[in-house]
Amino acid sequence: MRIAVLGSGMVGRTLAARLDQLGNDVMLGTRDPGATLARTEPDAMGNPGFATWASVHLDVTVTTFDEAAAAAELVVNATSGVASLEVLEAAGAENLAGKVLLDVANPLDFSQGMPPTLSVKDTDSLAEQIQRAFPAARVVKSLNTMTANVMVDPEQLAGGDHTVFVSGNDAEAKQTVTELLESFGHSDVIDLGDLSTARGAEMLLPVWLRLYGALGTPVFNFKVVR
Amino acid sequence: MRIAVLGSGMVGRTLAARLDQLGNDVMLGTRDPGATLARTEPDAMGNPGFATWASVHLDVTVTTFDEAAAAAELVVNATSGVASLEVLEAAGAENLAGKVLLDVANPLDFSQGMPPTLSVKDTDSLAEQIQRAFPAARVVKSLNTMTANVMVDPEQLAGGDHTVFVSGNDAEAKQTVTELLESFGHSDVIDLGDLSTARGAEMLLPVWLRLYGALGTPVFNFKVVR
Repeated sequence: MRIAVLGSGMVGRTLAARLDQLGNDVMLGTRDPGATLARTEPDAMGNPGFATWASVHLDVTVTTFDEAAAAAELVVNATSGVASLEVLEAAGAENLAGKVLLDVANPLDFSQGMPPTLSVKDTDSLAEQIQRAFPAARVVKSLNTMTANVMVDPEQLAGGDHTVFVSGNDAEAKQTVTELLESFGHSDVIDLGDLSTARGAEMLLPVWLRLYGALGTPVFNFKVVR
Repeated sequence: MRIAVLGSGMVGRTLAARLDQLGNDVMLGTRDPGATLARTEPDAMGNPGFATWASVHLDVTVTTFDEAAAAAELVVNATSGVASLEVLEAAGAENLAGKVLLDVANPLDFSQGMPPTLSVKDTDSLAEQIQRAFPAARVVKSLNTMTANVMVDPEQLAGGDHTVFVSGNDAEAKQTVTELLESFGHSDVIDLGDLSTARGAEMLLPVWLRLYGALGTPVFNFKVVR
């Protein structure tokens, strides 16, 4: 599948690399490809500069948000929650129309310090904001409840015996995303319902963040035992 | 242990019955014991009237909030979230002082219809509101992330292979609650940290409610796979 991953941070890179490895035709969209590709210094978290990553992922085309989205059959929003609407605007409503838009972002607000709060919650969600802004896109929320490494390689953790959620208004789009999740190795995909159920998935972040603190590692996930 | 369970709904009854069965000395606190004990009709959910329940739990003393709390070593808040502060006021700050106060309630607001929203969240929690209102109580948040039946009998589900959280500012109080949880059969108790981490546990409710809808049963729980 031709897939655009919007976002050059660790989530975008991790998804792009795995999708490429699985044989997809992957474009990574970023604001200024030249500037992104010129980054050789590690970021504040100690992750290698983008140039280092790109040098070992030569099959992933690094391009602008709109070029990536225009060429894709499926678009992944892997940007930070505060930037998502603006990035999707840059990608272009016409380039998202009719396409599955997999939203893995979380509306985390770090402006008041740690831990972050949610900029939207309970009576609305980032996924719904995106759907309202781009009504012709087929938005599916998923994967936002785990760290990037577990998103793409669930089997590293308890052989994959844990859960991933999907929320969305379009059953066919959720099926497409479910197949993508299964290609990553996910075996327990729960369809929470329409896109308003993304409120629940996004509101998992606060306990996720406390668990990260308590466990000292982001490599964990929720399993819905039933 | 002498334990007061405040609340005569299904959560209060389920906890009181199980604590009694485990050999504790249990008092169930309610606003008007006479009126509660006179209820013979099933409630709106089809649960038997309190009188029916009381007739098979004769060892549980049904009394007022303040008498129950006064006599107890440990107090359980099993009231609805909207009523919790008022009920604890009726129980009496002097009867809570120095005691472990296990808060299992959720701040669900049903006033706007279904699904309920949270009346407090993200930058505060019901547990913290209770702690501020009763600074001498030793508040521990726990058990609010699962249905009453699973709270007291975790082994009915996957042999108990799932997780319960504790949050609180008093390490000794959390240890007391952890031992109580273990007496129920819980084997994976995660200490999330201080009482502000109850924000995370309470914000699990929205996804819990959507899962209840998607799965068609409340008998499930989260396991933190790591």
